[in-house]
Amino acid sequence: MISFESDYTTGAHPQILKRLTESNTEALSGYGNDPYCSSAREKIKAACNCPQAEIYFLTGGTQTNAVVIAAMLRGYEGVVAAKTGHINLHEAGAIEYTGHKTLVLPHHNGKIDPEELDWYLKSFYEDSNHGHMAFPGMAYLSHPTEYGTLYAKKELERIAAICRAYQIPLYLDGARLGYGLASRETDVTLEDVARLCDVFCIGGTKVGALCGEAVVFTKKNAPPHFMTTVKQHGALLAKGRLLGVQFDALFTDGLYMEISRHAIEMAERLKEILQGKGYPFYLDSPTNQQFVILENDRMERLKKEVAFSFWEKYDDSHTVVRFATGWSTTKEELCQLERIL
Amino acid sequence: MISFESDYTTGAHPQILKRLTESNTEALSGYGNDPYCSSAREKIKAACNCPQAEIYFLTGGTQTNAVVIAAMLRGYEGVVAAKTGHINLHEAGAIEYTGHKTLVLPHHNGKIDPEELDWYLKSFYEDSNHGHMAFPGMAYLSHPTEYGTLYAKKELERIAAICRAYQIPLYLDGARLGYGLASRETDVTLEDVARLCDVFCIGGTKVGALCGEAVVFTKKNAPPHFMTTVKQHGALLAKGRLLGVQFDALFTDGLYMEISRHAIEMAERLKEILQGKGYPFYLDSPTNQQFVILENDRMERLKKEVAFSFWEKYDDSHTVVRFATGWSTTKEELCQLERIL
Amino acid sequence: MISFESDYTTGAHPQILKRLTESNTEALSGYGNDPYCSSAREKIKAACNCPQAEIYFLTGGTQTNAVVIAAMLRGYEGVVAAKTGHINLHEAGAIEYTGHKTLVLPHHNGKIDPEELDWYLKSFYEDSNHGHMAFPGMAYLSHPTEYGTLYAKKELERIAAICRAYQIPLYLDGARLGYGLASRETDVTLEDVARLCDVFCIGGTKVGALCGEAVVFTKKNAPPHFMTTVKQHGALLAKGRLLGVQFDALFTDGLYMEISRHAIEMAERLKEILQGKGYPFYLDSPTNQQFVILENDRMERLKKEVAFSFWEKYDDSHTVVRFATGWSTTKEELCQLERIL
Amino acid sequence: MISFESDYTTGAHPQILKRLTESNTEALSGYGNDPYCSSAREKIKAACNCPQAEIYFLTGGTQTNAVVIAAMLRGYEGVVAAKTGHINLHEAGAIEYTGHKTLVLPHHNGKIDPEELDWYLKSFYEDSNHGHMAFPGMAYLSHPTEYGTLYAKKELERIAAICRAYQIPLYLDGARLGYGLASRETDVTLEDVARLCDVFCIGGTKVGALCGEAVVFTKKNAPPHFMTTVKQHGALLAKGRLLGVQFDALFTDGLYMEISRHAIEMAERLKEILQGKGYPFYLDSPTNQQFVILENDRMERLKKEVAFSFWEKYDDSHTVVRFATGWSTTKEELCQLERIL
Repeated sequence: MISFESDYTTGAHPQILKRLTESNTEALSGYGNDPYCSSAREKIKAACNCPQAEIYFLTGGTQTNAVVIAAMLRGYEGVVAAKTGHINLHEAGAIEYTGHKTLVLPHHNGKIDPEELDWYLKSFYEDSNHGHMAFPGMAYLSHPTEYGTLYAKKELERIAAICRAYQIPLYLDGARLGYGLASRETDVTLEDVARLCDVFCIGGTKVGALCGEAVVFTKKNAPPHFMTTVKQHGALLAKGRLLGVQFDALFTDGLYMEISRHAIEMAERLKEILQGKGYPFYLDSPTNQQFVILENDRMERLKKEVAFSFWEKYDDSHTVVRFATGWSTTKEELCQLERIL
Repeated sequence: MISFESDYTTGAHPQILKRLTESNTEALSGYGNDPYCSSAREKIKAACNCPQAEIYFLTGGTQTNAVVIAAMLRGYEGVVAAKTGHINLHEAGAIEYTGHKTLVLPHHNGKIDPEELDWYLKSFYEDSNHGHMAFPGMAYLSHPTEYGTLYAKKELERIAAICRAYQIPLYLDGARLGYGLASRETDVTLEDVARLCDVFCIGGTKVGALCGEAVVFTKKNAPPHFMTTVKQHGALLAKGRLLGVQFDALFTDGLYMEISRHAIEMAERLKEILQGKGYPFYLDSPTNQQFVILENDRMERLKKEVAFSFWEKYDDSHTVVRFATGWSTTKEELCQLERIL
Repeated sequence: MISFESDYTTGAHPQILKRLTESNTEALSGYGNDPYCSSAREKIKAACNCPQAEIYFLTGGTQTNAVVIAAMLRGYEGVVAAKTGHINLHEAGAIEYTGHKTLVLPHHNGKIDPEELDWYLKSFYEDSNHGHMAFPGMAYLSHPTEYGTLYAKKELERIAAICRAYQIPLYLDGARLGYGLASRETDVTLEDVARLCDVFCIGGTKVGALCGEAVVFTKKNAPPHFMTTVKQHGALLAKGRLLGVQFDALFTDGLYMEISRHAIEMAERLKEILQGKGYPFYLDSPTNQQFVILENDRMERLKKEVAFSFWEKYDDSHTVVRFATGWSTTKEELCQLERIL
Repeated sequence: MISFESDYTTGAHPQILKRLTESNTEALSGYGNDPYCSSAREKIKAACNCPQAEIYFLTGGTQTNAVVIAAMLRGYEGVVAAKTGHINLHEAGAIEYTGHKTLVLPHHNGKIDPEELDWYLKSFYEDSNHGHMAFPGMAYLSHPTEYGTLYAKKELERIAAICRAYQIPLYLDGARLGYGLASRETDVTLEDVARLCDVFCIGGTKVGALCGEAVVFTKKNAPPHFMTTVKQHGALLAKGRLLGVQFDALFTDGLYMEISRHAIEMAERLKEILQGKGYPFYLDSPTNQQFVILENDRMERLKKEVAFSFWEKYDDSHTVVRFATGWSTTKEELCQLERIL
């Protein structure tokens, strides 16, 4: 059976496995103090054109969000996010577990509207009871969003300006950042992300690594003793090399973008196929995840030949499902899919 | 200046002060182990017609919500509440501080809709990704709500049935319970509340006490070692008598309902006055809080002669404000208000 | 039966009840924004000779410790305390509930040794693995300690100097501060406490109030939006006047020290009686709590005529018990005790 | 330079890398729902002779301790551990971050004494103030301990009996379990561990894996929805296969014990060398970690040729250091070490 279930169904890009194998017997210090982590940090700084960046490697996405948000908020602050934001819906309450409220804005195809953010922050401080409410202490975006959509550079600039005006950091969750940067329909570069955000993460797990997210603090604003906070959250790997070697490989010779572009090309072909077969799209996604509405009967039949993801109930007889491409998606699989659909 | 700012602007009902004074020099054990606490518990059980009730006294409303909710939820669960629920909006993230997410339903004049609750719970378990989401572990209602509105007995019965079906406890926040029970427009009695809810609180602070909320577990379901949990939250008074004596007084000779009926009568007269003067109501409240929409200019002028509460911005030139009555509201104050308006 | 069970067995000093009664019908704003709270703050500042002090009123001791410590520590920090410190032993894990570790030093009759504190801090930073450990972020003292003992001024000065050297705040838990200041065997004044500590609390509950602790930040170092943090912990009273009126009374015409001196005089007489009867003291306490070692048989007999507190097991046949005096202890009760012993 | 710094300085055992490479392109479901995780679970059950075991894979040791302990304790409970227990000293307050206190017992070469545990539990319930204290809700052991020492089977049996008597679960932290089982000086088998403990973990990170700990609930006592709790703690890997494949390899053809025995043999030789050179041992460790006392001068000279770990200050002129062996330690490295020492 072929799988378009997600971008984390297969293992690591072969180049990553190769580097893990080659470096395997070197004796290295633990906890991120090894030369591969250092080298990966330098390469990421260069790719971001952000020499002052402070970079840490964590293992997973929910973990990264929880650790970064908890470390940057003060005790009485919450994080502002779209209703559909990953931290609000699909992290099992991991943010709240750290003691902080998620302050919810409406979403528009997964994105927050900059003017709604501005209005929210303005209203908060105008409310004479705001001392009895959780303070907005950070803005959270995902890019691409949970629906595969992207912010335009102008939108990011406006959001960054609002955050500056209210003196709260802007955090961009880039669990699938590569696919956002490699999309044909974006004007946002990695440099833009580093320039506009106070902190962001570069997802490895969903872009060819076995695991791993790189957290980038861009304004010399890494929380003091952040490594201890990472440990306190149970997020510090003893063999930090596992993350260092992988990110070093991903940021050598442009592998991260190569993987991302490949998945985007495969997604474009996927989109053509789905369109060709007359499947209605739930929304227009310019990245590696495509959302279509299936009749429940058809969905059940398809399931037997191709793996995809349940997304949400559409109505009593239809379901929104997701097809995703990744580093390992092949043209052959797409041809096979076309035959099946 | 006269005040309709809230139901907690004046001290305690004289009968309560009298009892505190009379009992003042008795040497009593601390932490709720005194005869006044015991007596108050017995009187509350009788008033609820719930002999198996387990009753604890806490000092404030936010504290009570946080302690009860944290003690009853399992780690991976959140609490379902209306978007306007006190725990979601005006408790500074106190629930989240205990590590639990507030799972938000739409509100209808402050109330949740039973069918929306049912749909939410049904959808949660149908979603194949629900293992990645905070589980609904309790339903939270306030009665009266933050808008002074009330659930009908039928609605409470339906909500209780839904909670039973999904095996989650129903918690009713009765910070102003007396005003709900004393309203002319309710068919809900204290016995109904005790019968239908798994746990609820009887607010003292806003119904004539200096401070204090009585938590009532109705189904032999008090969490084990709940007193220790209360202590752990910093919510255990050394001089527990302060709460015991007050609740003993409130539940002697029907004082709690007497205070409540008085405030409701005053609120009915207040409503007439406001209607007579042509003030538009924001919504129809059958309890001791009345919400009207004021032009901002008029609001500024009124402020100089009468105290009331800012509630929320209505539009750029109007504001929703609240007038509240309480145990100490007098006919004279209402006459004076009528002259001012 | 007479009671020396604790300093919180009776209600409030009559002067406090009087002021609560007199102010009862005044309509005042809630949450600590009333003129009594303001007046109490000014009087405390004057008593401390600390015009820049920022003062907040909370209800109980465990609550105060948890809120202050959580608000002042960074996420990765713990609080250093004696093994017998109230926060380490008798607060049901309230500090840990806020996410922070208690870092334990040995105790010497309830006190920490300044040089052991210095050594601990020095060793911590010398340990090359300290990044994997909770950082010491505050020093906690109780004065009087849980054993009724007192720090000398020199000791407090040395501890304060160490804290400054390691840039951590010094917090003094003064749940029974009055009895420490009124002891004949102290050279520490309230001004000293305010000068040497970064934050401390003045206990009301155990010194004549119904409830209430005043938190004093002495160095313009109150955490931002501290009131919101207090709310978030469920520690904000709606009728803040209850605390304001009480502390205003306690700091009018020296009532706080008058109450304290009275209890100390009663404790001195108590000590004489216990010594006269040949009871061995567990340690020498210069304050209102006296600890003696009783044979278990004798303890059981005494229990029937006088209330005192179990403190700890001494050996299989003996127990350490505590006798305490307070604002309401009378000479008559002491005479009666003498007859009974 | 040769390294005896730790058992996590090199990558994975070649057999593990091989299996990761072979399975790399298979499309598998995420989050631990893949056939490798299932197969690994079956093999571990068989190795433990515990068919009813419920097994979960997490990434790291501190994470495992925090997630398991938080999931099994009730809110008002703490975990009993030796003063030197990993959770008390070297996890940056990760347990306290979950809201639970570590209740500390003395250590004896890293171990707790069963009778001291019994005495502690007995005294807790005899103390009439125990309602004001964190309840002991679990006993935590590490085996091998942080000093490489081992419990005898009798000791484990006694501890298990005490835990049963007080109805608290026994948790064994087996971050280095293999080295304990492969020691010549143990009478404890993996079956014993599974029989005596309520939950334990089998460390992968320090026994040949890139990362990974297997949590084994032995009494059908896995907390409900444990996977959601794992997610909530940020501990759920999207590519769960990374852990499944590794543990499947470790428990195929006895690889886990083969790795462990190899490291033990290397440690025995290491011990001989250190003894031969006259280094005083800090204590006698029968496992893969050896602790010796070095003069500081000598330590500085050695550091230039061989990597080892600082453990703790011994006195002003001596330091305790650790030499550790692991899957990749070779006879050649030991010969080289002998020449250097």
